[in-house]
Amino acid sequence: MFTSRAVSLLPKLVARSAVNSRLIQTSASLQTNVAVVLSGCGVYDGTEVHESTAVLVSLSRAGADVSMFAPDKPQMHTVNHLKGEPSEAQRNVLEESARIARGNVEPLSNLKAAGFDAVIFPGGFGVAKNLSNFAVDGPSMKVDKDVERVLKEFHAAKKPIGLCCIAPVLAAKVFTGCEVTVGSDKEEGGKWPYCGAAAAVEAMNAKHVVKPVSESYVDTNNKIVTTPGFMCETAIHEVFDGIGTLVDEVLKLA
Amino acid sequence: MFTSRAVSLLPKLVARSAVNSRLIQTSASLQTNVAVVLSGCGVYDGTEVHESTAVLVSLSRAGADVSMFAPDKPQMHTVNHLKGEPSEAQRNVLEESARIARGNVEPLSNLKAAGFDAVIFPGGFGVAKNLSNFAVDGPSMKVDKDVERVLKEFHAAKKPIGLCCIAPVLAAKVFTGCEVTVGSDKEEGGKWPYCGAAAAVEAMNAKHVVKPVSESYVDTNNKIVTTPGFMCETAIHEVFDGIGTLVDEVLKLA
Repeated sequence: MFTSRAVSLLPKLVARSAVNSRLIQTSASLQTNVAVVLSGCGVYDGTEVHESTAVLVSLSRAGADVSMFAPDKPQMHTVNHLKGEPSEAQRNVLEESARIARGNVEPLSNLKAAGFDAVIFPGGFGVAKNLSNFAVDGPSMKVDKDVERVLKEFHAAKKPIGLCCIAPVLAAKVFTGCEVTVGSDKEEGGKWPYCGAAAAVEAMNAKHVVKPVSESYVDTNNKIVTTPGFMCETAIHEVFDGIGTLVDEVLKLA
Repeated sequence: MFTSRAVSLLPKLVARSAVNSRLIQTSASLQTNVAVVLSGCGVYDGTEVHESTAVLVSLSRAGADVSMFAPDKPQMHTVNHLKGEPSEAQRNVLEESARIARGNVEPLSNLKAAGFDAVIFPGGFGVAKNLSNFAVDGPSMKVDKDVERVLKEFHAAKKPIGLCCIAPVLAAKVFTGCEVTVGSDKEEGGKWPYCGAAAAVEAMNAKHVVKPVSESYVDTNNKIVTTPGFMCETAIHEVFDGIGTLVDEVLKLA
């Protein structure tokens, strides 16, 4: 009942109930199991929310079974997204990620490649602030220990890894010589404001491949699939569709 | 450049730049201008993020020009989405809505129907906590003053109003006798956990029409379009597609 008792019923609503388990369709027994790794909630200090939706809707449409994970640790900082400035607030990456996951998200330390067929990382500054410190240290960045472990586990098991937007820098750092796209390596009149990320990928001894926002790039040797997402200044449906191609490619490799 | 300077560049990044203005495509001069009203960021105390994405992607694909608005006031409360419990944190509706809007959101007080062809409200508990107090008072709720003003302005101008999920209660309260759907009026084994909202709609002297999540209902007399969204426990792509039908109907009426 969505009435005056709604407030007190909240704990019940957010529990591991049908509400959450059905966020993604689970109808077949031989489904592809995909882990999605979040980094908060909001483009400037967490996961880019529309990219996460694009990943989840595409996986749901394909009938995949999805589990979400995020590091249980403080965010690097909290950005007031209205003012575009860091604020005093302290927030937790897992708790904020739960806003996207409708409560159904586990600590990243629980994620083992053995239980899944693929892993996908939506983008957003959270990747560069909470899953690594790329936003501060650039190519000499450190990757979060659990993120690095998860990437290496899936890679060793020859299970596909999908990375959107700025998330490909994680693979560039962890897998020497891998091939990824973060879009264009030129600004093109403001269309690619973060084009410097392409040079950072090369500085980390990976290969950057230029791709439009509507496509993904598949490194077949490493089973790494990447797409520019909001690295490109464009209409939101183009970002959505580009991420759709990434999900398709990941599922083909799974 | 997305390198070590990224942190200090944040204010620039979030300013009213191409980053934001291009979130939705703006190519034609005779575009439909649509206002989207947000209520925070996160299903249990704000806008349901995936519903907002569904609205924005559908509008973008149709070539509409979009502006986002939210009340500049404190949230009713902040819910820790991981634990499903209210927390001590105080957050502002406009600032949290900016996480969905990538910084490009204005105070709701700025929204005048004269400048737009239609208005759409995504769902989430923020509608029942920040745009009204339905979550506390049920059918005897009060609607936020600016929300009520905006609804009445669009209605008086015979411009369409789209409402997702629980947001139809706003129309039910403001427009006596209007017709809306919040999905089913029966729980159907957990599929419609908030089915009590249908009775609340009737208690406010509006008419409730049962609809599946994949469809919307159009009250042609009032130009009010509604769809169940996450009132239904189902796969996320079904919610996404249902909201797509709402956007289509709203644009037809605009």
